[in-house]
Formats: sequence, structure tokens, C-alpha cells
Amino acid sequence: MARVSQAHLDARRRQILDGAARCFARKGFHGTSMQDVLHEVGLSAGAVYRYFSGKDDLIAAIAGEAVGSVRQAFEEAARVSPPPTPDVLIGRVTRTLFSGESRGMDRRAYAGLIVQVWSETLRSERLAATLGEAYAGLRLAWAELVEVYREAGILAAGVPSDHVARTLIATAQGFIVQLAMFGDAAPEVLENGLRGLMSMDLQKIS
Amino acid sequence: MARVSQAHLDARRRQILDGAARCFARKGFHGTSMQDVLHEVGLSAGAVYRYFSGKDDLIAAIAGEAVGSVRQAFEEAARVSPPPTPDVLIGRVTRTLFSGESRGMDRRAYAGLIVQVWSETLRSERLAATLGEAYAGLRLAWAELVEVYREAGILAAGVPSDHVARTLIATAQGFIVQLAMFGDAAPEVLENGLRGLMSMDLQKIS
Repeated sequence: MARVSQAHLDARRRQILDGAARCFARKGFHGTSMQDVLHEVGLSAGAVYRYFSGKDDLIAAIAGEAVGSVRQAFEEAARVSPPPTPDVLIGRVTRTLFSGESRGMDRRAYAGLIVQVWSETLRSERLAATLGEAYAGLRLAWAELVEVYREAGILAAGVPSDHVARTLIATAQGFIVQLAMFGDAAPEVLENGLRGLMSMDLQKIS
Repeated sequence: MARVSQAHLDARRRQILDGAARCFARKGFHGTSMQDVLHEVGLSAGAVYRYFSGKDDLIAAIAGEAVGSVRQAFEEAARVSPPPTPDVLIGRVTRTLFSGESRGMDRRAYAGLIVQVWSETLRSERLAATLGEAYAGLRLAWAELVEVYREAGILAAGVPSDHVARTLIATAQGFIVQLAMFGDAAPEVLENGLRGLMSMDLQKIS
């Protein structure tokens, strides 16, 4: 049997995943058959099934990679000290995730793929476990960052850090919804919007 | 032919929609057949097809109602003068939408139904038109409200009202994602989180 290098295996796996992601973005998970995926990547069933047992396996791999990208984008943006303010940080994360092309897909199609993953997650224990773990990790990381803001004296007392963390994650999730559905969401929108909210001085309201 | 009152027709339509929504929440749009819907509502095919031409028609009706609920919840919460601050307003809207039961579904299932509608919207022109129109209306209504905050002098200059509007809508959309996927989202989380963000004093950061 001929020896196959790891690099070759990785490239083949990448080729299959990217092709599957393009199919899913175009026709939806439910509208895509394994036959569509084989056709898109131009490989035989034998070649593809060596890497993935079926559609659910492909979806799980794509979800896992998306989750990894979010974490990496957050870690890169938060690494500086002192950390950037939330508006700047969210702007950087969304810019990293949705800049240019991802797997031959435009950013709107990629956002649509994420919305589809969320929808699938409601009926897949495997996806729920992957996304649940990732979300818990992100929540903790954001809450730590919010604690830094609090120590710097820029956050009101009595607001749980976890709630601010979850609200910031929610803005990014909502951004993905808007990008997927309406296509015209740019990271500046969220950045300016957060800056606007942070500028609101509640004490000026009697 | 026996005369049937409008109230009877409405009640029948309601019964079908609620049953379909329960099926969709439980098994997903794609995992639900019209046979499942007939079984759930306990009516004959003839009775159901008199009201809805099929699954797509049911989904569109459910999406249209959800959109109407969001608009109504926003209008009710914003009606007071001066309008409540964004944290309070978003808290009221999410509380109205996700308080208690909706159509025999718990709030998590209802949030899951909305996430499914978003996912379907990516491949349905009909849903895209319904949701696009609703989103445009909400954006305008929120932007008007943000202008009131601006006139009250509590919003920084140079931040487009539309960006604040879209960011606030994004927090509610992200809340729905978190509620659907992880189940533990309460309106206080978003309310506190927004209050925390609004308390952040960027001018204290050198």
C-alpha cells in the first residue's frame, strides 16, 4: 500500500470540508445530499467516506471549526494589555471572522452557515455538546475581561460580569443573524452601536 | 351547506397553527411531515388543507405571527413618554415575548422555533420578504427612539442612530439564540448587561 503523507491527508480533508460547506451554504443542510457533496468536491464516495461517515459528521466538523475560529479571533483581539474596550474588541472579532472570503464563501454565506448550525444544534446532542462547551468558555473569557474593566473603574457596581459577558456575546450573535438574513451588516455597525450605548449617561436622566 | 361563523374559522386556524408550531419546535421543520401535523391537531387532511396549502404555508404564517408579536411588544414598551432607557425597554420586550407559555410551548421551544425560522429564511424568498420588512420597520422605530435619547443629551455625538438601533436589535436576537441553545437566558441578563455597558465610562480610560 502506498504511503500517504499527513499533509496530503489534511489537504484532502480540507478539500472535502470546504466543498461540503459551500453546498450547505447554497442549499441548506437538509437540501444537500452526500451525492451533492461528492459532486462538489469531485471525489469518489470511497475517498470521502474514508474521512467522514456522513452529513452529520461533516456538519459537526464544520461547527467545530467555526467554534475554534471564534475562540481564536477573541483570544487574538483580547491579548493586548490593557485589553481594548468592548466596542473595539467586538469590532476586531467580527472583522477577523467575517473579513473577505472564508472557504470560497462570501461573509454572508458563512454567517448563514452559522445560523444553520444553530438550528441543527436544537436537535443534535453532539452539536449541542460542542457549542455548549465553546459558549461556556467564551462566557468565562469575556467575564474575566469585564472584571478588568471593573477594576479599571469604568463599570458600574452591582452589574454581574457574566451578564455583561453574555450581552456582548449576544451582540455578536445578533450581528451574525443580521448578516445572514439581510447581508448588509458591517463590523462598524456593531462597533459604533456599542460605543453609542457605552456613551449613554444614565445619570443624566432624572 | 351549513354556515360557519368567523369565530369558528379563526379558532380552527389557531388550532392548526399551534399544533404545527409544537411539531416544528419538537422535530424541526424538516423532520416534521404534514402527517405529523394532522396527527397533532387531530383533524383530517381536508380540514387542514382548507386553511394551509402545506408546510411552507404553515411556516410563513408562524413567522408572520412571531414578527407581529415582536412589533407589538416593542410598541407597548416604547409607548410611554419619555421612553424607557434601552436596558429597560429591551428587558420589557424580551419579558413580553418570552414570559410563560406561548402556544403550549415553553419559552425555550419558542426561541428555538424563531432560530429555525431564521435558518429557513436563508432559502425562502417569501420568508425573507416577511422578515426583511419587519426588520426594516423595527430598525426605523428603534432609530427614532435613539434620536430621543440623543435629544435628551445622553448619547455621544457622531454615533449613527441606526447603528445603535441595530446593535440593540442584535442583543435581542442573540438573546434568542442563547435561550434556544442553552435554555438559561432570562431577560434580566440582557437588562443588566446593557445597564453595565451603558455605565462604562470611556472617558475614564486614558
